[in-house]
Amino acid sequence: METIQQWKRFEVTFNGPIDGNPYTDVDIFADFVNNNHTHHVRGFYAGNGKYTVRYMPQETGHWNYKTSSNVSELNNLQGEFNVSAATGNNHGPVIVKNTTSFSYADGTSYTPVGTTAYAWAWQPKDVQKDTLETLRNTNFNKIRMTVFPKYYNYNTQEPSMYPFKGSHPQSHHPYTTDDWWIKKEDIKFDFTQFNPKWFEHLEKQIDALDEMGIEADLILFHPYDHWGFARMGMENNKRYLKYIVARLASFKNVWWSMANEYDLMDDYDQIKLGDWDELCETVHFEDPSQHLLSIHNYYNPPIHHLKTSNWYDYSKPWITHISIQNYSYYMAVQWQKEYQKPVIFDEIRYEGNIEMGWGNRSAEGEVDGFWKLMAHGAYATHGETLLDKPQTNRPIWWAHGGKLYGESYKRIGFMRKLFEKNNLTDIVPIGIDTPDWELYAGATRDDKHIVIYFGTSQPRFENIPFLLQDKKYKAELVNAWSMTQKPFKDEIDSTTWFELPREKYQALILTLKED
Amino acid sequence: METIQQWKRFEVTFNGPIDGNPYTDVDIFADFVNNNHTHHVRGFYAGNGKYTVRYMPQETGHWNYKTSSNVSELNNLQGEFNVSAATGNNHGPVIVKNTTSFSYADGTSYTPVGTTAYAWAWQPKDVQKDTLETLRNTNFNKIRMTVFPKYYNYNTQEPSMYPFKGSHPQSHHPYTTDDWWIKKEDIKFDFTQFNPKWFEHLEKQIDALDEMGIEADLILFHPYDHWGFARMGMENNKRYLKYIVARLASFKNVWWSMANEYDLMDDYDQIKLGDWDELCETVHFEDPSQHLLSIHNYYNPPIHHLKTSNWYDYSKPWITHISIQNYSYYMAVQWQKEYQKPVIFDEIRYEGNIEMGWGNRSAEGEVDGFWKLMAHGAYATHGETLLDKPQTNRPIWWAHGGKLYGESYKRIGFMRKLFEKNNLTDIVPIGIDTPDWELYAGATRDDKHIVIYFGTSQPRFENIPFLLQDKKYKAELVNAWSMTQKPFKDEIDSTTWFELPREKYQALILTLKED
Repeated sequence: METIQQWKRFEVTFNGPIDGNPYTDVDIFADFVNNNHTHHVRGFYAGNGKYTVRYMPQETGHWNYKTSSNVSELNNLQGEFNVSAATGNNHGPVIVKNTTSFSYADGTSYTPVGTTAYAWAWQPKDVQKDTLETLRNTNFNKIRMTVFPKYYNYNTQEPSMYPFKGSHPQSHHPYTTDDWWIKKEDIKFDFTQFNPKWFEHLEKQIDALDEMGIEADLILFHPYDHWGFARMGMENNKRYLKYIVARLASFKNVWWSMANEYDLMDDYDQIKLGDWDELCETVHFEDPSQHLLSIHNYYNPPIHHLKTSNWYDYSKPWITHISIQNYSYYMAVQWQKEYQKPVIFDEIRYEGNIEMGWGNRSAEGEVDGFWKLMAHGAYATHGETLLDKPQTNRPIWWAHGGKLYGESYKRIGFMRKLFEKNNLTDIVPIGIDTPDWELYAGATRDDKHIVIYFGTSQPRFENIPFLLQDKKYKAELVNAWSMTQKPFKDEIDSTTWFELPREKYQALILTLKED
Repeated sequence: METIQQWKRFEVTFNGPIDGNPYTDVDIFADFVNNNHTHHVRGFYAGNGKYTVRYMPQETGHWNYKTSSNVSELNNLQGEFNVSAATGNNHGPVIVKNTTSFSYADGTSYTPVGTTAYAWAWQPKDVQKDTLETLRNTNFNKIRMTVFPKYYNYNTQEPSMYPFKGSHPQSHHPYTTDDWWIKKEDIKFDFTQFNPKWFEHLEKQIDALDEMGIEADLILFHPYDHWGFARMGMENNKRYLKYIVARLASFKNVWWSMANEYDLMDDYDQIKLGDWDELCETVHFEDPSQHLLSIHNYYNPPIHHLKTSNWYDYSKPWITHISIQNYSYYMAVQWQKEYQKPVIFDEIRYEGNIEMGWGNRSAEGEVDGFWKLMAHGAYATHGETLLDKPQTNRPIWWAHGGKLYGESYKRIGFMRKLFEKNNLTDIVPIGIDTPDWELYAGATRDDKHIVIYFGTSQPRFENIPFLLQDKKYKAELVNAWSMTQKPFKDEIDSTTWFELPREKYQALILTLKED
């Protein structure tokens, strides 16, 4: 009998009908049973008359399954397998822990330190190889990436295949079209027929990420489209979601990002604000593993206060965390309070030099954003949009992956290691009843470990009045930019005044002194 | 017959009663008549049996006046004088122009580039001398300053005199008191009796500022008090306002700042939010010259959204401009639109190294704030809180005046000169339908002169799509930090793409090419 590890993928494939359109004509499910608990799981058509069911068991022990289908030859097929305890680097999927933090399912701490390479899986093979190599040698543990290809400035290369049967229009609209880069009547795809090879490749790359301990924050819809994938209509949208959940819910490192910049998809005949609930509910209902699920905005509150009338309601029960684009870091604490969920600033502008404001941030600003958010128990995601020259064809990390050329990723990696080394995980903000210009500070829930970040503020001397009155801490002084950490004070408490160098990007790491 | 220049001060003094309390017992007014227009103006008791009426004539020609009083010897006293046209540097008081900008009364452009030295007029003589010398050698044209002395961290020296008869309590409460540094029963001043010497000295220093072309943004109330001046009660508050308006409305360079951080005065028995209307109305009614009038906050929207329930309604008719403390620059445009008044960010944190967040900003940040606001047709005010060592007794510019030691004031001076040289005055924001991370850009109302500021954004190449389509501009490239300006492009228009150095704090100055 086959044995797999807890949280790894069980997969079984059966032969079935090949005629007609199996994607629409054939349903297959399997009931997975363990210890009297039954999990009803959708399978999918894998092409060539093959039907596959996958499942990620969350409990150890003996499991059996039995299929059901509207096709008799796929009905009542049975089997069994054993699930052994997880070992090694297998800690299970990431889940929400303590309201505003994350951990792995086995309780191991997980602090998302993400990056962004939207369409990396659809680039030429050498670029994909570079991407994986870069990820192996940097220090990110989450990547935002799309299921669909991307069409946008700097993203005009056609992929070598497509997720659906069909082809892209011979002449697509230029960037300046007012019909979001493709007219509906020009769409040349049959959205009822998937291309299994597309998804097989995606799965291979998600597994490659998992081997490196990287979560795939998988973007299910996005507006940067000239094939029609952003305007398939609700019936096709839901069929696509059922298909991808059937294929990918068994991958332990998958997160569902319902859309990137959903609020740019409200025009033309794309997906309207009111449609997202139904799409989220579809994933929530279909996913037997209940992966993390969120949706990502474009317009920034409070800057865009006039444009956020199409703000998605993150209090909806299927939303597990806030995946936001925003640059007003003080909002992190407001959202933690308002939604009682973890908050990830999944776009804080990218380190780069392209012409668009979201892609020409300084490296210092990028690093500063990570520290401010992480010191408040929120999280950030990196991106890089550095060109070597205008209109270059060099891959740009943010969309293509490839290589990193900037200065921020190193400091972000330093930060992640520093936080881990100092047990700075599952942080809650402290001392926040202060304006934006005050300290960014956070503590572990047992108050044993504290981080205090000064940003560009440069006090010559300071005290930390909001430390617990009877606690004494050892202090180390960090410079987030020069990546230095050195002993600072053997003992400080809430009454201690201390001098600081007049430098930018300083932080203090405090460790409780046990009596 | 005496002749004075338009907008200069006419003053006449009469002998009157010296017994009792002339401040409460005696009213004196004069009707100033010119060309059949009558201006009813309150006079004031100047001490030693002297009663003075002052007036700033705004029209040239022949004027006469006649007094009225509840005391017969001060009644029906008459005189006349001539008013000649203004000459030289006399451009009159600053007024609102074109809804969101300022000018002098004679139409000469005025762009406020202010600094802050709250209690400079009440420091030791050598420090006051240093302050005037510093102002002469820098490039500010407005200063925020208080009528009352200041008691606060670093501000614990008693002044050599007081604005009212009486003395300060022998033992005042320490900084940590919960009764705002003085208990009401410890107040030892008679608020019905002014000290004319206090006001004479203030007047001398306001005249000294006027000689240098510097507007005195005069703060009438503030919370940093341990004498009781912040808690005199409404009757005394209004008597004080009538007195100071009678004394100072004839000073052409005076602006009324009703309070500094009014929203910190709402506790204890200080001045409540609902009282400010009556106090503003008092000044508005009493001031025959209708000087600029505003009120200045502490709590920052939108950061402090929970604390701004005591936000003053700047749409009130007596408020001429928005005098704000804020660090969210995109709010400038929102307030311009909402209130249809000029917006001055009168506190954007100070360049410095003190322990409090509002006083340990980097010099780069201070300069960046000026550029972002001025490029959007709003205005900023400088301050410096640099200590040479903790608890030093060296005067700190922000409160005491003295000398400037920082790096921002030079760049702010450079900016003012640059804007003047390039006719960048009376600017309106352009290209603002973009997030905070986009360009900060503004144009003169005739679109002849444009400033585009990049802040810390570092595009390798860029275009300015929101330029008027049929207009062509000469472009100069500025670095706001290194204070350089050099030719950039002979001609650019809305379609031109250009490369930029990858540097922080760059700006483009565009000048329309005439056909």
